[in-house]
Amino acid sequence: MKAHKIQQAPIPMRSVGPIRLTGHLLDEKVWVPLATYETPLWHSVGRGARISVLAGGIKTSVIDERMSRSILLEADDAWAAHQALLSIKSRRDAMNKVVGLSSRFAQLIDMHSQVVANLIYLRLEFTTGDASGHNMVTNAADKLIPWILSEYPGLRYSSISANYCSDKKATAVNGILGRGKYVVTEILIPRELCERKLHTTPEKVVDLNIKKNLIGTLLAGGLRSANAHYANMLLAFYLATGQDAANIIEGSQGVVHAEVRDGDLYFSCTLPNLIVGTVGNGKGLDFVEENLRLLGCKEDRDPGANARRLAAICGATVLCGELSLLAAQTNPGELMEAHLKLER
Amino acid sequence: MKAHKIQQAPIPMRSVGPIRLTGHLLDEKVWVPLATYETPLWHSVGRGARISVLAGGIKTSVIDERMSRSILLEADDAWAAHQALLSIKSRRDAMNKVVGLSSRFAQLIDMHSQVVANLIYLRLEFTTGDASGHNMVTNAADKLIPWILSEYPGLRYSSISANYCSDKKATAVNGILGRGKYVVTEILIPRELCERKLHTTPEKVVDLNIKKNLIGTLLAGGLRSANAHYANMLLAFYLATGQDAANIIEGSQGVVHAEVRDGDLYFSCTLPNLIVGTVGNGKGLDFVEENLRLLGCKEDRDPGANARRLAAICGATVLCGELSLLAAQTNPGELMEAHLKLER
Amino acid sequence: MKAHKIQQAPIPMRSVGPIRLTGHLLDEKVWVPLATYETPLWHSVGRGARISVLAGGIKTSVIDERMSRSILLEADDAWAAHQALLSIKSRRDAMNKVVGLSSRFAQLIDMHSQVVANLIYLRLEFTTGDASGHNMVTNAADKLIPWILSEYPGLRYSSISANYCSDKKATAVNGILGRGKYVVTEILIPRELCERKLHTTPEKVVDLNIKKNLIGTLLAGGLRSANAHYANMLLAFYLATGQDAANIIEGSQGVVHAEVRDGDLYFSCTLPNLIVGTVGNGKGLDFVEENLRLLGCKEDRDPGANARRLAAICGATVLCGELSLLAAQTNPGELMEAHLKLER
Amino acid sequence: MKAHKIQQAPIPMRSVGPIRLTGHLLDEKVWVPLATYETPLWHSVGRGARISVLAGGIKTSVIDERMSRSILLEADDAWAAHQALLSIKSRRDAMNKVVGLSSRFAQLIDMHSQVVANLIYLRLEFTTGDASGHNMVTNAADKLIPWILSEYPGLRYSSISANYCSDKKATAVNGILGRGKYVVTEILIPRELCERKLHTTPEKVVDLNIKKNLIGTLLAGGLRSANAHYANMLLAFYLATGQDAANIIEGSQGVVHAEVRDGDLYFSCTLPNLIVGTVGNGKGLDFVEENLRLLGCKEDRDPGANARRLAAICGATVLCGELSLLAAQTNPGELMEAHLKLER
Repeated sequence: MKAHKIQQAPIPMRSVGPIRLTGHLLDEKVWVPLATYETPLWHSVGRGARISVLAGGIKTSVIDERMSRSILLEADDAWAAHQALLSIKSRRDAMNKVVGLSSRFAQLIDMHSQVVANLIYLRLEFTTGDASGHNMVTNAADKLIPWILSEYPGLRYSSISANYCSDKKATAVNGILGRGKYVVTEILIPRELCERKLHTTPEKVVDLNIKKNLIGTLLAGGLRSANAHYANMLLAFYLATGQDAANIIEGSQGVVHAEVRDGDLYFSCTLPNLIVGTVGNGKGLDFVEENLRLLGCKEDRDPGANARRLAAICGATVLCGELSLLAAQTNPGELMEAHLKLER
Repeated sequence: MKAHKIQQAPIPMRSVGPIRLTGHLLDEKVWVPLATYETPLWHSVGRGARISVLAGGIKTSVIDERMSRSILLEADDAWAAHQALLSIKSRRDAMNKVVGLSSRFAQLIDMHSQVVANLIYLRLEFTTGDASGHNMVTNAADKLIPWILSEYPGLRYSSISANYCSDKKATAVNGILGRGKYVVTEILIPRELCERKLHTTPEKVVDLNIKKNLIGTLLAGGLRSANAHYANMLLAFYLATGQDAANIIEGSQGVVHAEVRDGDLYFSCTLPNLIVGTVGNGKGLDFVEENLRLLGCKEDRDPGANARRLAAICGATVLCGELSLLAAQTNPGELMEAHLKLER
Repeated sequence: MKAHKIQQAPIPMRSVGPIRLTGHLLDEKVWVPLATYETPLWHSVGRGARISVLAGGIKTSVIDERMSRSILLEADDAWAAHQALLSIKSRRDAMNKVVGLSSRFAQLIDMHSQVVANLIYLRLEFTTGDASGHNMVTNAADKLIPWILSEYPGLRYSSISANYCSDKKATAVNGILGRGKYVVTEILIPRELCERKLHTTPEKVVDLNIKKNLIGTLLAGGLRSANAHYANMLLAFYLATGQDAANIIEGSQGVVHAEVRDGDLYFSCTLPNLIVGTVGNGKGLDFVEENLRLLGCKEDRDPGANARRLAAICGATVLCGELSLLAAQTNPGELMEAHLKLER
Repeated sequence: MKAHKIQQAPIPMRSVGPIRLTGHLLDEKVWVPLATYETPLWHSVGRGARISVLAGGIKTSVIDERMSRSILLEADDAWAAHQALLSIKSRRDAMNKVVGLSSRFAQLIDMHSQVVANLIYLRLEFTTGDASGHNMVTNAADKLIPWILSEYPGLRYSSISANYCSDKKATAVNGILGRGKYVVTEILIPRELCERKLHTTPEKVVDLNIKKNLIGTLLAGGLRSANAHYANMLLAFYLATGQDAANIIEGSQGVVHAEVRDGDLYFSCTLPNLIVGTVGNGKGLDFVEENLRLLGCKEDRDPGANARRLAAICGATVLCGELSLLAAQTNPGELMEAHLKLER
């Protein structure tokens, strides 16, 4: 194999749907491109999509967005670290002037910190327009560090990234403080539809969600996570739309909540850390641009609106696949049978 | 977008290296294909690869392998659950006869369990030859469940997968009980090489590893993880070699340990849950087969040997990228500068 | 305050009950001593105890027991570490001869390990008769280390305790590999009793358990835990019976599972890591001996039987307090009202 | 055993010290009462105390304080939940008027939330003067809930406590958002003192801290924790000073950071969640009042100052015991020998 020759890894991709979405962001049917080696996923999401149409839609809410970078500084002792942090946190306006030199879109919206011994872990949190924002926040941090060191001569540089961000790692901080889009998707599925199309009952899905997703993940020592396979849908969606797919690690930490409501099935997927963008790294490729365009995420909108739309669609896609797998697993043998049939 | 037409998502791919490997599995130089939207990664891994050659190689050990599936059963009460488990665990030979009907390669090697109330979470652990084994173990579990239910009429079926497996989720169980290949990679880098090629010192890398990877991840509420960006290398390697890339979630939970030894830098990456295979899902595609062939992982060897070789190479690739990034982050400004230069 | 004069901290203690227990270990009513500054706890557990009597008893199962100590050794590299571990694990009989020199009761029953870089974390697991066993396993490890170092001259000593034990820390390893007694307690409460005595319904308790204990703890970034206040009952029981109460940290990691069954309330508390003993440290004090005697845990039984009985009673006590608090929290205002009334 | 007769559990207690403290809160020597069944602890803390005097003191910083209670409400859907939260969070002044009716000391200082499906987990954070504040915040929440339900008729009550608080549970949220006092203690120990009094070297302590506290706890699946036995000191200090000792669960989640600095040992203990108070539950007992008085924590100071002083002393006590045990574990055999000698 000759080195340094750029090549391509063509991952199988198919457009699945349509998925019916409702909510504050969009009210329409959307076909979703999914690129994956696990091709039975197409069928699984497709089944959920059909339910979304028949049940009147998946209600989707995007309730927060931010991207973070944590820097690491050192003070003389813990008290000096604390005093410096108090002051820095009070000067967001001055810091945003510095941030503005690095990007038109980045806006410092909050800061959180940890002090260990004399070490300062400062988590800088930004909105980043339509970009997922990894580079934008690194760039902003790169500008802020010299400013901080010059304003606070008692502090010393240690690292531009200190894992309190926390990028592509399964942690608790992202869910608690926010990173990426916070997306909630909900659907109410009539009992009759549940039985006819999913071959199960609302009670069975609720029961399995408790025993498998909540208790099973807990026993495994899971962290802020209760779902069957968010990761599969996220990977396929991310690859098809030019996202940094390593962010499925935090993205897949989310919670399925299901209830029987008046005999019907209320089913929801909460994804507190969905990192997606419609511009930036990975977006220049033709097929990516085409996919984003077909998803309606390259329109002329306010900064951030295209990315929020993309997040909403991604969250609905996750719900479709999650619902379909859980329903299948309520029936002995169905999962394996489906795999064998589809992979032949 | 027309539905149901199979398409492709061509991810940029480049061959990086050579990486020099030593150890019980292989002693040679290898070029590694990496498919990713984050193209600065090629440069980063390439820098680590050059160090591997100059320092005499990355010693790689594969010290465990298994794939698991946890099933969920119910008993009348906790005591009945316990009694059934005691009996089931004593009958591995009988169970392997059942497993043998589903696959030539799957072999049940261990079982672990949890009892909650009257619920049984039984984790079945198999070797699976050269396959990563997801489907093989699901298939085996699918055969074992009817056998168990018939041998233990007091038990009832609840689910074929109960998240105690635990697939594509960040949990503690996989690291503690094993899932995938357990890979350790180690290198000793002379101080002079550290300074000349990485523009840093052994002390600085050790210090950053403690403050960022160990303490920083801990503060973030991380789970069995202390590294800077295992996830990036894993994703790129997985996509290029036809792996189920959603398994980067558990794969990226691993530990960097670095020490100054007689003035030189000892640097190691431990990856307890590296799920890779050289046959099975995703492997039929031409470019995947070609990549596996070029990596020397399609040779005529004992079952499992090709997959172990692949795991070793993957682990060494992770070390290259991890070393390079940590070295860069010891220097203010270097990370952003490199990104800006490479992405132009 | 003059130093070095031994004094006493007299904690308020009351005997609560009787609690009705059934199961494989005991079938009787027991009064339970609870020492605590949080005196409303007495009332809370007492309410649960009355339910236990009216509902026909709390079924209690003790399904595992062990105490562990992890030692830390170093090898030349990861492969040497692995080879040494393979050999050590195969020689349990020889090791038990060494263990036998340190104690009549300690018995090495299993070993688990982790390798990071060239480091060996070896978790030694013992049964320890009626003692909780902290010192017994430290003593055994202290004898085993010289034996290992002499049999495996390639290994070096690093520490007698390496936090993979894991003592008095909230971790996942204890739940997965076992430490202390694994106790499950279950009760079936008729709907009518639920309504009349707990002023709630089975449905409300089940719903609250899902939303508070399972989802709420998950959101908090909890680890293998889903309960309202196991810790309170454990502390009070531990102090009254001479236990090392810092072990409530792992002891309180457990799961409440509740279901509506035929209109009644099935309610269970699983405690996988209950560390208790009837001999050893803290047990020589008069009031402790008296409490253990009154609990029927100083009888002439096989080694371990008294401690298992104590664990069963402790688990049932936890269920009483947990049930009572959850029931109270289903009603707005009831919790605060009870506190205000009782603390006056 | 007759029920309902109040008794006492007299725990052995000794005054240990003096510990030398410096920092923004106090600059003096203090004798510390410790109540415990694990009496070797007195010797261990005493050894650290002597180091504190010889090394010029333990610098102590208290950098945050708050107590939290999370309530659980339900909205019609996720978007309605989000809209209600936006409004509630903007009305802190109005809410503090309600809080003021329940307590002179409670002050609502911040709010954080999580939305799952249509569920609202609202974490109310208060300062609570010299009380640890458990009841104060429950009482405040009890007043705030009717106010919220009346102001936001679209919301429904679910529970007064939803485990996102998170009380007496090992979680990540308390460390990230704060609960109790955030205490950092630091000491610089000359190499000569390290060798003469602790029979070890700065390098050995630093090395053990990395391998045992950081990596060992990580492997165990620990959560935001890296220490050897914070729990032991906390339990003994809490019992002697009338604290709710079940709070050692979150209190013991903290980080030891050690470095060799110019040949000397820098050693620090960070305790982000130390819940202590000098008034309230458990404080009325004579010996508790006496202990608090002797610690100088019953002086006429601004509200909160006595509790901060108590937190500082507690943090320094933890450092003494932690330092002593780590030093002992660097030497093979020393730990067991000390236990055997002291327990005889």
